[in-house]
Amino acid sequence: MYNFTEPLKAPQGSAIRELFKYLGRPGMISFAGGYPSKDLFDRAGIGQALEDAYSSDPVACLQYGDTAGSPALRRAILRLMNDRGVTRDVDDVIVTTGSQQGLDLLIKILVAPGDAVLIEEPAYPAAIQALRLAGARLIPVRTDAQGIDVDALTAQLEALDPGTRPKLLYTVPTFANPTGATLPAARREALARLAMRFRFVLVEDDPYGELRFTGESVKPIAAFADAIPGASDWVVYFGSLSKIVAPGLRIGWSIAPPAITRRMLVAKQTSDLCTSPLAQETARHYLESGRLAEHVPVIVQAYRKRYDALSSALRQFVPDDIDYVVPQGGMFVWARLKGGRHSTDLLKRAIEQNVIYVPGPAFYVRDPDESSMRLSFAAAPGEAEVFEGVRRLKLALASR
Amino acid sequence: MYNFTEPLKAPQGSAIRELFKYLGRPGMISFAGGYPSKDLFDRAGIGQALEDAYSSDPVACLQYGDTAGSPALRRAILRLMNDRGVTRDVDDVIVTTGSQQGLDLLIKILVAPGDAVLIEEPAYPAAIQALRLAGARLIPVRTDAQGIDVDALTAQLEALDPGTRPKLLYTVPTFANPTGATLPAARREALARLAMRFRFVLVEDDPYGELRFTGESVKPIAAFADAIPGASDWVVYFGSLSKIVAPGLRIGWSIAPPAITRRMLVAKQTSDLCTSPLAQETARHYLESGRLAEHVPVIVQAYRKRYDALSSALRQFVPDDIDYVVPQGGMFVWARLKGGRHSTDLLKRAIEQNVIYVPGPAFYVRDPDESSMRLSFAAAPGEAEVFEGVRRLKLALASR
Repeated sequence: MYNFTEPLKAPQGSAIRELFKYLGRPGMISFAGGYPSKDLFDRAGIGQALEDAYSSDPVACLQYGDTAGSPALRRAILRLMNDRGVTRDVDDVIVTTGSQQGLDLLIKILVAPGDAVLIEEPAYPAAIQALRLAGARLIPVRTDAQGIDVDALTAQLEALDPGTRPKLLYTVPTFANPTGATLPAARREALARLAMRFRFVLVEDDPYGELRFTGESVKPIAAFADAIPGASDWVVYFGSLSKIVAPGLRIGWSIAPPAITRRMLVAKQTSDLCTSPLAQETARHYLESGRLAEHVPVIVQAYRKRYDALSSALRQFVPDDIDYVVPQGGMFVWARLKGGRHSTDLLKRAIEQNVIYVPGPAFYVRDPDESSMRLSFAAAPGEAEVFEGVRRLKLALASR
Repeated sequence: MYNFTEPLKAPQGSAIRELFKYLGRPGMISFAGGYPSKDLFDRAGIGQALEDAYSSDPVACLQYGDTAGSPALRRAILRLMNDRGVTRDVDDVIVTTGSQQGLDLLIKILVAPGDAVLIEEPAYPAAIQALRLAGARLIPVRTDAQGIDVDALTAQLEALDPGTRPKLLYTVPTFANPTGATLPAARREALARLAMRFRFVLVEDDPYGELRFTGESVKPIAAFADAIPGASDWVVYFGSLSKIVAPGLRIGWSIAPPAITRRMLVAKQTSDLCTSPLAQETARHYLESGRLAEHVPVIVQAYRKRYDALSSALRQFVPDDIDYVVPQGGMFVWARLKGGRHSTDLLKRAIEQNVIYVPGPAFYVRDPDESSMRLSFAAAPGEAEVFEGVRRLKLALASR
């Protein structure tokens, strides 16, 4: 009766939210959550930042702030970006209410109903959902264990109907959700060139980039684009404190070309006026305290141990049943059931065994790989639980 | 080159943001700000709430939270709404990142490019801008000193082309921005019936409702709709802590029919995942502390004094030049220059005299009243400054 803009289908990722009801079940072991580990928040450090922020300038915490974000926080973010190899000015940064809002703002200014949008597949479900809500026509882009297959994408773009010009391409190039894959340097450069050639905005979503526990660090695509004249006009970078400080602050940021930043600011004004100044001031004091540089290695080391436990357990308990992609960091292992089995079917029996994960189809735009599944090791409380969880998966596999 | 969804015109309200640069000028007296007074934040009470929230449950402050908002905060909001005469269940409330986000979510699910939308005129600029960004076809609705002229609106709706069904009507019925007008009870009931009859969603934006300093309190339209079978299906209410606690928390809420709430939640998930749990926990502890009931009268009394000073000064200094609407609360006086003078022209001379206000045209969709101007008394630091500000307006008027 209300005449909504879009029919309400089951939202992308609703299979994931369905799983939430099992999280609190006594004895449940979860590989499902996409949340960072609550045991690894720097509670004392963030608490100190909160106290410093409020006691030094309560009005800055309580009053409306700039739509673009606090200049001091933006400068602290620029220093972080500089360490990642990306050099920009304060005017190029917008503080967003989580990086999710950055994507939302970009979609608002760029994507009209029916517009073509490229998206890596499998992909982060809330990105798929945000694009669907805007009425985008999604074109999935093939990935392998190293992220987007740039040759395949090039062929795909060359074969497009000349009337189709994709507005943007969405990717998480480092420790992707759900695959854990990391795009190598050569592909990053090629992707930046492709964006310029085909004039689409390349969205580099980078929440996990600092969580590397093995292998050599690779710069953001935005840094590669800087070295190619004209390419940085086509790259929008989203960063976030959610996985390295705390999601509860809802502090993310965008780094974009001036014409895009200008319009995103108008969209931000109409979306929430500004990101919580209380959260911004806390984030600023935390970043200025220098504790992040000490704390990120603590998170990384813990995640490495949990990943090591998960991979050992998979090799020990289910070597003939489950294959997986080896990540170099992040929070996720992307696995496949051998022998044509479906992860959605297995989940029912896994729940009986008190273990859960996210079936892979939640991450697909179309033609899902029914065998796939995402195992999150980040939120596992300890190595013993990880082993026990995989042992239960083995029982679930045996119970068909 | 990016092929944006909409051409970037000067955003609605950009005239207001233009004025910001004068705010810091030494000796400037501002009637321009739409901000609550920074001197009236309950700094100690909010500080205590912050401390209580973080020390009692740091993980709740730091981790992701429910998309709909913390259940405890939603219950506290329901108690507040109950005091306003509106009774609902916890599932009817979404905590939003300011009430601006509530409007943004509703527009996302309801307004497609080209859709007709009714909006009171003059209106809050960020509402106009949000609707424009969504490509809405705006139909202004006439107001008088008591808000929307419901008879005129009825005639307007009856005269609409049968193919035009407005998706929604936006109004601030209590102490409106910019007019300060308050819709009387009979018009509230009539408006609720009209929404039902013409099947548009009536958006009741209510950030100022508790700031009454004279006259009898009138319930929200949502409460009137509850007494008319079927009418509450057509009313969406937005509340906010920005004007009674602090804007820096970015805590607002929606109260909507279930089918609308369900879709707004999907839109919220893709907009920012959840409102900052740190801000939510702080708001919850503040509301549970009971200090709000003691603090709102402090704000109201201060605003009443500032309004009294402004109206005395207008009568004393410029009785033959400026007419104004008498508000019963809120933060604004809506004034008109007599003799066909334009408020935009006067502003240039006002700036020379070190006083600013917002020219009325910023609040119009079309055909602005060029004589109109918004004078905010909320942020004036004291009665002496108010008198001095109006004396300067008189000088500006004389300097033509």
